[in-house]
Parts: sequence; structure tokens; C-alpha cells
Amino acid sequence: MTVQKPSIPKGTRDFPPGEMVRRNYIFDTVRSVFELYGYQPIETPAMENLSTLLGKYGEEGDRLLFKILNSGNYLKNTSHLSPVTIHDSQFTIHDLTQQIAEKGLRYDLTVPLARFVVQHQHELSFPFKRYQIQPVWRADRPQKGRYREFSQCDVDVIGSNSLLNEVELVQIIDDVFCRLKVPVVINLNHRKILSGIAESIGAADKLTDITMAIDKLEKVGLEKVNAELASRGLSKTAITKLQPVLELQGKIKEKKQFLEEFFSHSEVGKQGIEEICTVMKCLKELNIKNKFEFDARLARGLNYYTGTIIEIMALDTDIGSLCAGGRYDDLTGVFGLPGFSGVGISFGADRIYDVMMNLKLFPETLQSTTRVLFVNFGFEEERFCLKLISSIREAGIPAEIYPEAVKLKKQLDYANRKQIPFVVLAGKDEMAAGKVTLKNMETGEQETIPTINLTDQLR
Amino acid sequence: MTVQKPSIPKGTRDFPPGEMVRRNYIFDTVRSVFELYGYQPIETPAMENLSTLLGKYGEEGDRLLFKILNSGNYLKNTSHLSPVTIHDSQFTIHDLTQQIAEKGLRYDLTVPLARFVVQHQHELSFPFKRYQIQPVWRADRPQKGRYREFSQCDVDVIGSNSLLNEVELVQIIDDVFCRLKVPVVINLNHRKILSGIAESIGAADKLTDITMAIDKLEKVGLEKVNAELASRGLSKTAITKLQPVLELQGKIKEKKQFLEEFFSHSEVGKQGIEEICTVMKCLKELNIKNKFEFDARLARGLNYYTGTIIEIMALDTDIGSLCAGGRYDDLTGVFGLPGFSGVGISFGADRIYDVMMNLKLFPETLQSTTRVLFVNFGFEEERFCLKLISSIREAGIPAEIYPEAVKLKKQLDYANRKQIPFVVLAGKDEMAAGKVTLKNMETGEQETIPTINLTDQLR
Repeated sequence: MTVQKPSIPKGTRDFPPGEMVRRNYIFDTVRSVFELYGYQPIETPAMENLSTLLGKYGEEGDRLLFKILNSGNYLKNTSHLSPVTIHDSQFTIHDLTQQIAEKGLRYDLTVPLARFVVQHQHELSFPFKRYQIQPVWRADRPQKGRYREFSQCDVDVIGSNSLLNEVELVQIIDDVFCRLKVPVVINLNHRKILSGIAESIGAADKLTDITMAIDKLEKVGLEKVNAELASRGLSKTAITKLQPVLELQGKIKEKKQFLEEFFSHSEVGKQGIEEICTVMKCLKELNIKNKFEFDARLARGLNYYTGTIIEIMALDTDIGSLCAGGRYDDLTGVFGLPGFSGVGISFGADRIYDVMMNLKLFPETLQSTTRVLFVNFGFEEERFCLKLISSIREAGIPAEIYPEAVKLKKQLDYANRKQIPFVVLAGKDEMAAGKVTLKNMETGEQETIPTINLTDQLR
Repeated sequence: MTVQKPSIPKGTRDFPPGEMVRRNYIFDTVRSVFELYGYQPIETPAMENLSTLLGKYGEEGDRLLFKILNSGNYLKNTSHLSPVTIHDSQFTIHDLTQQIAEKGLRYDLTVPLARFVVQHQHELSFPFKRYQIQPVWRADRPQKGRYREFSQCDVDVIGSNSLLNEVELVQIIDDVFCRLKVPVVINLNHRKILSGIAESIGAADKLTDITMAIDKLEKVGLEKVNAELASRGLSKTAITKLQPVLELQGKIKEKKQFLEEFFSHSEVGKQGIEEICTVMKCLKELNIKNKFEFDARLARGLNYYTGTIIEIMALDTDIGSLCAGGRYDDLTGVFGLPGFSGVGISFGADRIYDVMMNLKLFPETLQSTTRVLFVNFGFEEERFCLKLISSIREAGIPAEIYPEAVKLKKQLDYANRKQIPFVVLAGKDEMAAGKVTLKNMETGEQETIPTINLTDQLR
């Protein structure tokens, strides 16, 4: 066989042990909080039918789906393909794609959830509180901090219109980031407030344009947003009317007062204000530890939220959004189950990882799994050690023996590289005395103790 | 939008909460044993370059790889495709596939491990003890118990020739199946014994044919195996000489005695015997709880093992192999790092799941995550409960409140369907008295207790 230089597809990553342990720390924390709030796990296949995925993420999303070639030997089995397409000079690969690819890799966890809920509706109890932690794939241009395979941790409630769910989701966000010690600010808005704004400036038909433009406010500044609004066809009058909203600052009370006036002719705007204030009021009573704010300008790129919009920004770094979500009415309608509202949030594990690395927030104790390495001095010593190791493992202490009787230095190097805190040395003398020498790899200290005390010493 | 009937690709599965909890029980058990023995986790991308995967699993394997269409809009960007291929009447989709698909879904965890070890060789400490629990994909014909997406739990040691690794892997197998309470038999063989057999019957060049035929012995019986051997070109003399091996029974001592004689002219056979006896002897000293046996006929379909071969069969069911593995010299040679031996085993989580369901081996306590549901009686009661729930969650007890003040029956039904063991009822009277009513959903008993005692009662 020819030798190949090993590599992986661009935008994907290997996770070596050190990273795995830290990533699992995030996943375990998130999972334990989800379960504390009564959410149950599900998983869905990596591959979905393209009919499930296409048209759900906009034109851009369709383009970014990874498509899977139908399996089987289509060389020998082309009868199901349209011969016109294949032999026609007007042949396009796009036509072919539609015929040879029926499956795609999941692009997020929300569309699979909607599909799952409809497909399993008779087995589920509603409101259905589920969480899902799985990778998703997007054929995005890879860049710093953006990958083609990355993990999402989603938590959603399906089939309940109560705002209590929004409150609970903010509690979950607060709890997760407190446990991870990541400082964040939780921003809240409501789609109906955005609708109210569009209505109140006389541009109800331009809601999408407005949200897409003001979503960039933080990034590009007021001037460029106004320029974009103009280029998207908003009248001068509308843009002028919008200015106080773009510059809206202050406490929730002041914002509320301003918007109630601003929405004097917008019922939908008033509804939005009322809902967001209900959520904020309940949160105030609940001892939320992170800062949470109502931000009337928060729009989010995705245009499918119909209720509350939630975004969590990392403080002290420029990494940005760590977690986002909101409410969408009629989540499952497209799959044949109308009238089911969904509200949920998605934690971006990779972004959270980057923030925690930047701010050095991972506990130092995460580093190694093995607690003790037994040095291998040869056949007889090996046999003596194997029995000791069994009893240590029975006590739940991770232990290993170096598999070969190589030079002591090499074995100790192995322990150091793997950050194993203790090493046991048991040569013929120790064996005869029923003892072992226990070496602390950090301090270098060592003492000879009876084998019977070893497990206790290692605890 | 048109309504779609929701479905998933054939051979794939959704995992609802009940199944997830049971699957996680298997994964958690396996993981904790792996870590107890000093193995560290890694993960690799779902997609590998096709150059990494092709040619590693035989012709059949190449055909069963799921291939991913290159991303981007190749309609507008066909310049990189050979125009001859596209417009030629000899056009084949196979040619096209090679140009439009450069990535495939991982088919197992062994080839990615080899690729990983070579790519990260300078970051790793050898012997490298790693475990990996991830799904793999094969475009196999779906059938009962065989899926196109399934999970493997692999544990391997790279870079050590010591037989101690084989011993440790059998200990791990024994430990895992003891914890899961799944009764198994651990079968061991050695590739060199198979080579010795082929050599000793004068058919050294027919080793692959022999192993492929005798691998079916258990399934199809002696007669059909002999017929297959003949059809694969084995001489009558060779088949006659092979008979005592195919019928070999008895204790390890008797088998050893027979084979030592049988291998009187086969050095490789003698080596195999010696190695397998070393492993068996060490295992005998180590209090292995499951039955383990040497079976000279164990061949396994895969032909790449060069040393020990391990297979674990479920007892008491007809599900068959739950776990298999062995040693392969020069695991990483194809990726440019020659001379690194690997030995490992792969647990089939889906098969283990099926056995545990068949034999009813999952603990009953696995069923639900939430311990207590607070009934929702309306706005004021809700606020009262939310604070209580916070303190219960702070004590680590999973708790939830029904998000809407619907009929009591509906709320209790929800608790029953989700198998929540306790329900708290707190109406205006209880609130005024600083008390709650705690209902045991299994017995139906209920008592009114001070709120301050609630957390302790739920523990």
C-alpha cells in the first residue's frame, strides 16, 4: 500500500484526551442542569431525508447542507436515473444531485426536533421537555472559531404557550453559566416588539429588512445601519422615526414607558411589551445571578421567532454569542401537526469552550483520569502487581500498570506525560516484605507502606 | 408550505427519552470501566477524507461507505471537473463520484484511530491507551438488529507488544459485562494458530479461504464448511487433515497438547500456542468472573488481525457477538508510521442493548429524571412554588412545575406518563399555612408538611 499523509477534512477537528476532558466538563454541566429542570434526553440520526431539511433554513441554509450520495452501486443500476439528464448536453450536476442524493447531515437540532415530535407524537407526554446534545454539520467557509462540525446543546419545551417556560429557560441559562463560572449578560426581546416598531414607523411590510439591518447595530454602528435601512427601501420618515428606538437606553421601566407611548397605535407592540415585562418581573423575584436585560434592538439573524428572543453574550472577551433561542409558534406545522408552539435555547459548546480557555476557567483537577501507575519490573513483579491493581480498581480508583518492563525512566516519563499523580514501585524486596513504595509524582516524595494500606493512601 | 409526512432514512433510528436513559446506562458503564483501567477519551470527525477510508475495509467496505457530496455550488463551478467525463458518452457516475465526493462518513473507529495516532504522534504518550464512543455509518442493507447508524465503544492500546494488554482487555470485558449483568462467554484465539493450521495441513497459501470457511462453523455446521473448503480449492488431503481441528473439544490443556503435536512442523503455530497459553494462564490467576475459552476455530470475518483474536458471545439469547477485537501489527503503517502494533476491542452498544432488553437486565430505577412535579394552580401559587422549586433544585433534586394552570387531572396524568414519583400540591390554604401537600404517585398516599421539610422528604 502507498503511504498517505494523514489529514482530516477542513473545518473538522480531532479531540485529543485533554480537550475531551474539558469538553465533557461542559457537556456534563449542561446535561446535569437540564435534568435538574426536568428535561429528558433524545437523540436523532445524523442523516435526515433531504425533504425534511430543504427549505427550512433559507436559500443560504440549503446551500450549506452536506448531502450524502445515495448508497449502492449506481454504476450498475442507473435505470432509476433519468436517461435524458445523463446524456443530454444540457446536463447539470444540480439535476443529478437531486437524483443521487436523498439524505443530508443534520444542520441544527430544531428541525429534527420538530420532525421527531410529529413522528412520535403519540408516545410523548406534552408539554414535551427535551434536551439534545449532538453535533451538527454546515458547509460554511471554515474560519477561526467556526467549524463545519460542531456541537449544539439544545433544550426546548414543545406544546406550551406559558411564559413560565421562558422564565425557566433563563433560569437554566443562569444556572449553567454560574456553574461554569462564565460571566455573561442575558439579553431578551420579543418578536412582537420588533413588529410593533415596524408598524409604528409605518413600515410593517419591511419587518424582515428592519430586523436584518438592526441586528448589525452592535457590530457596525448606527450610521451604517441607517444606510442599510435606506438601501433596503425604508423611507426617510420611517428611518427618522426609528432613531429613538435605535438609541434606546436605560432601565426596563424607562424603556417600557417609552415603548408604550411609541406603540400607542400598535396592538402587537403593546402585547410584546406586556409579555416581556411579565417575564422580566418573574425573573426579578427569582434571584438570577447573571445580568439580564431587555434590549428592543435584539433581532437575531434567524427570522422564525414569533415570541420571546433570547441571546447570551460573553463578557470579558470578544467571542460574542454563547447561547441563543426564542419562541416559535407552529414549530411542527410543516410536518403536519399545527398549533404546537416551541420555545427553546441552544448552547454553543465550542464557543463556550473557547471562552473558558481564554479566561482560564477550567478546573485544574480535570487533567488526568489515572490515579496511579504501577511500574513494571518484570514477570514476577507484574503478577504481584496485577492482583493489587485489581483490588484498587474494585475500590473505584483508576489504576494501570506499564505493560512492559522497560527502563524506569521511560515508565516515569509516561506517568509524567499522562499527569498521573502517584507511582507504585514494587520490586523483589518489597514483594518479600508485603510492601510497596508509593511515590508522589508532584512532590517527588516516596514512602514504603504495607500493601494493605495502599488503597486508603490513594483515596 | 406543503405538509410533509415525517420520516427518517431507513436503517437509522430516533432515540426517545426512555431508550436514551437505557443507552446512556450502557455508555456510562463502559466509559467508567475504560477510565478505571487508565484509558483516555478521544473523538474524531464524523467525516473523514475518502483517501483515508478507501481501501481499508475491502471491496465490500468501499461500497458500503456513505460518501458526501462536495459542498459549494458546483453548478456554477464546474471548471475543476474534467469536461471529457461530463460530456463523454462513456460517462459514468462512478467517475463523477470521484470528482464530486472527497469525504465519507466514518465506517468504524479503528481506521480513524490509526489516522489520529499518526497525525498527533508528537502530542501523545505511548503506549497510547485510548477509548472512543461514537456512531459509525455503513450503507448495509438494513435488517433486524442491523442499522446504518450505530454506536461503537472502542478501547485500544497502540505501541505496545506486551501480552499484558490482551490480559487487561479481557479484564475490561469481564468487568463491563459483570456490571451490566449480561452473561457472556469470552472466546480467544490467535492468528498464528490459524496460520499454523493452514501450514500443517499443507495449505499455507489458502489461509484466507480456510478462515472464511471455518468462521461459519457455528452457523452452518461441519458438512457445509467442508463443502466450502473444497469449493475454495482445498485438496481432499488437506480437508481430511483439518478434521480433528474442526472437531477439537475439551479443556485448554488437552487442546494445547493436541495442537503442539499438530504443529510439530509449524513454528508459527507453536508461537501462537505459546502466546495464547500465556494470556490464559495470567487470566486464570486474576479471578475473571465470566467463562473464557480458547477456541482454535474462532476466525472472525475481518482478516487483518495478526495476533490474538477475541470474541464475546451472549449466553441465553441468539443475538450472538456483543464485542470483538484483537491485535493487528503495523496498524499505522499505511499512514506513514510503521512498526506500531495495536490491540483493542469494540463493544457493540446496540447489540448489548438488545440483549439487555431481551433478558430484562436494565435496572428499574432508570426510568425517570424528574423527582417531583409541582401542580400549577394559577399565578399566585405559581410564584410561591417557583421559590420552593429553586431551593429543591439547589439541593440537586430534579424538579419541575407544570407550566400552565390546567385541570388537575391533566397535570397528574403528565406526572404519571413521565413516571415522576412525587407531586406537590400547594393551593391558597397551604400557602397561608406555609405548608404543601406531598403526594406519593405510586402509593397514592399524601400528607401535608411544612415547606421547610420538603427537601428532606424528597431525598
